Amino acid sequence: MKLLRVGLPGKEKPAIIDNEKNFRDLSKVVSDFNPQNLNFDTIEKINQKNINSLPLLNNNERIGSCVTNPVNFLAIGLNYKAHADETNSAAPKEPIVFNKSPNCIIGPYDDVVIPKESNSLDHEVEIAVVIGKKAKYVNEKNAQDYILGYCICNDISERDWQKNRGGQWVKGKSGDTFGPLGPYLVTKDEIEDPFNLNLSLDLNGKRRQTGNTKLMIFNFNFLISHITQFITLMPGDLITTGTPSGVGMGMTPPEYLKEGDQMKLKVDGLGEQNTKVSKEK
Amino acid sequence: MKLLRVGLPGKEKPAIIDNEKNFRDLSKVVSDFNPQNLNFDTIEKINQKNINSLPLLNNNERIGSCVTNPVNFLAIGLNYKAHADETNSAAPKEPIVFNKSPNCIIGPYDDVVIPKESNSLDHEVEIAVVIGKKAKYVNEKNAQDYILGYCICNDISERDWQKNRGGQWVKGKSGDTFGPLGPYLVTKDEIEDPFNLNLSLDLNGKRRQTGNTKLMIFNFNFLISHITQFITLMPGDLITTGTPSGVGMGMTPPEYLKEGDQMKLKVDGLGEQNTKVSKEK
Repeated sequence: MKLLRVGLPGKEKPAIIDNEKNFRDLSKVVSDFNPQNLNFDTIEKINQKNINSLPLLNNNERIGSCVTNPVNFLAIGLNYKAHADETNSAAPKEPIVFNKSPNCIIGPYDDVVIPKESNSLDHEVEIAVVIGKKAKYVNEKNAQDYILGYCICNDISERDWQKNRGGQWVKGKSGDTFGPLGPYLVTKDEIEDPFNLNLSLDLNGKRRQTGNTKLMIFNFNFLISHITQFITLMPGDLITTGTPSGVGMGMTPPEYLKEGDQMKLKVDGLGEQNTKVSKEK
Repeated sequence: MKLLRVGLPGKEKPAIIDNEKNFRDLSKVVSDFNPQNLNFDTIEKINQKNINSLPLLNNNERIGSCVTNPVNFLAIGLNYKAHADETNSAAPKEPIVFNKSPNCIIGPYDDVVIPKESNSLDHEVEIAVVIGKKAKYVNEKNAQDYILGYCICNDISERDWQKNRGGQWVKGKSGDTFGPLGPYLVTKDEIEDPFNLNLSLDLNGKRRQTGNTKLMIFNFNFLISHITQFITLMPGDLITTGTPSGVGMGMTPPEYLKEGDQMKLKVDGLGEQNTKVSKEK
């Protein structure tokens, strides 16, 4: 199933896409797609509904982030070798884990806003994993049991703040609007082979990033196993799993996001994200 | 006022300490001390109550963390020069900001548990600032307007995971029980001079850490101003502001926490935290 949140910011209703691509209102089934409700019981409850009998929502309404208020919004650094190469970094020996502020999450068609003092804002098309149950010391073999689904994430990054402002990356990864998420959370049963998904990002109609999950240094299962040796993951947690090459920082000279830019992000089976870049006044 | 949460884990009731040191139930005034409710309106509502007419709670009940489910649980690295020295690190030119998983927060008398594969668990007595309203681009001069109060935080750290497992610190800062918080959130009106507070940690009755907030490299106001140039802070967010010298890692040879250890943390005006160290089975 494809789950989404429809409505104005802060007023989104949980919804599902039916066979005719209509949005159907799930408010009577689940209050929101947040840590309290994003779990396999909720998926089962939705499964038992006749989707086509649920109230229709307006397909032209704003789409919010497909997940809201995760306890952890973790991200993986340098998880595609070609991207490590373009940043002149060694491929990591084990996953580089960092945080984004959950507060930076926005909808898949909302504007990405360049902060006033920012001069090096960059895009990173990624696939985020959504956790479906409490996960601690997970064995790689069983990692799929903990995945509720997948969605597109643009891990927006301020390169100067990330690299030159104190050593840890969180300052450059957590600004307002730095986490466009969606359009929908696709439950894992709809993804035939998560280890062979194409992902891409076009900037102003030109291809900038191309990748495939088979090129990940650490795949979804390994990441969940690895992280849960250190950190207990909870339902609704997000792990965005790294970006392929083609970021602005990797160009000579670097080409960062500017006002008016249009980003189109696509991942096999996960839909398409379209965001415009604007500048903070 | 001194605010706390009283009851079994997950069932805590918000409470306040009256003049006779009794716990008074605030459940009828505020549902919990979480991001939805930790703000100046709530403080005002509590101010309007006659505290001594509120229902008494049992003073022998468990005390939980004084704040729960913050959106951001940020921490500051190397913020006392003597601590930077003992770790053979240069004093930072600007604040080092990192995240702890909000999931690691526990009560002030709960056990700190050494994870199965951990061999270098360490203590860090700190003062956490609790944010009271949305904070973005805050001027240092106005930073106090955004502070709701202060509490004790032990920034428990797994040194090997922090330093040798991928570069970013979050892996070593986010394990279960790595964030004892409290006993109470003290509103800022009760703290006469936040820039002159003694803090200390005793291990098994012997003094290990001693410091005073006047020795912070970056004080509370500077930290809030600095962080909000990058990250928007929200009500209920926590910033734990760095530890003075005396951690286990700084000793020759290092002395890490072991099963049965007793930690006593004290900060002027913020009470006392007592935690036992146990080992994960």
